[in-house]
Amino acid sequence: MRRFSTAVSIDNQFRNRAQLARMKRGAKLAFLFVGFLGVISPFAAESADDVKAPANYRKWFHVNSMYVDKTSPLFDVLGGMHSVYINSTGESALKKAGPYPDNTILLDDLYDVTLSDGSYVEGPRKALAIMVKDKKKYASTGGWAFQAWAGGDPKKPLVTDPVKQCFECHQARKDQDYVYSTYLP
Amino acid sequence: MRRFSTAVSIDNQFRNRAQLARMKRGAKLAFLFVGFLGVISPFAAESADDVKAPANYRKWFHVNSMYVDKTSPLFDVLGGMHSVYINSTGESALKKAGPYPDNTILLDDLYDVTLSDGSYVEGPRKALAIMVKDKKKYASTGGWAFQAWAGGDPKKPLVTDPVKQCFECHQARKDQDYVYSTYLP
Repeated sequence: MRRFSTAVSIDNQFRNRAQLARMKRGAKLAFLFVGFLGVISPFAAESADDVKAPANYRKWFHVNSMYVDKTSPLFDVLGGMHSVYINSTGESALKKAGPYPDNTILLDDLYDVTLSDGSYVEGPRKALAIMVKDKKKYASTGGWAFQAWAGGDPKKPLVTDPVKQCFECHQARKDQDYVYSTYLP
Repeated sequence: MRRFSTAVSIDNQFRNRAQLARMKRGAKLAFLFVGFLGVISPFAAESADDVKAPANYRKWFHVNSMYVDKTSPLFDVLGGMHSVYINSTGESALKKAGPYPDNTILLDDLYDVTLSDGSYVEGPRKALAIMVKDKKKYASTGGWAFQAWAGGDPKKPLVTDPVKQCFECHQARKDQDYVYSTYLP
């Protein structure tokens, strides 16, 4: 299966607005850390270098799981099994579909899968992606910092331009405070 | 999509040993609450009527997620998106693949999914299934109680004969204290 780190070069794939429209329809996906487009803008927004991957998130509230199959136009970048979590700061806001208070963290833990007799079973971690809310600090990206790490390795950050790589797509969810995930009873 | 409550009648499907062998190979599945076979044995073991669905499990340690597709021989009963949790009592035992202490609870939250442009997105809950450890009380089923509820509704228990409906398959994982799930870093 194609590794996440090799997928960053497929930038043009996500420039197609028809695909974006489909993504919106598909859209319980957590927070489409869309594309890691690999485009470095000369006017890059703050790169969220200060954002760290949190510990113990697997005991945060589990928002949902989603499997992105190879038939998806997003497969190269987002293919695999997603498990989305939210910290306690954001839990009650999730149930109202936002707005989220400062210090809310949403996290998407993405695993490669193997197919065994019709069951898609998780293998190695492909990436870990987060959104961290701070209305003032990250005002240029809807009040959210975006970051992701290949394989979940803190030494392998993937987001260098959160506007191009993340926020351009998340803007479509302004009505939900830029969050794709919705509460699942 | 076929509802869980209608699937209980497909008992013969799981009597095929070849299928069971495949299930074992496929087997990071949490705790195959296999079959809800719908077979009432005249010598039924304790029915675990006292087992209740726990609250707040979505903040327990999230063990893994798995998607069982329509191409699986298990689809009718187990098709959908599984999210598996373990309570704090069992967490450290999970990392050693058992044995599990008394009062360990494993829970499988199963959702129907809809397919949208290659992404499998969770819809309504199909079933909630648990295993509760008590070595003495449930000695006849490996020290585990098994129960499940259609749609997660406590008024709709599905397990009436834990030996036939659950334990016969879980015996294959005796080396892991009868638990299919394994720890995912």
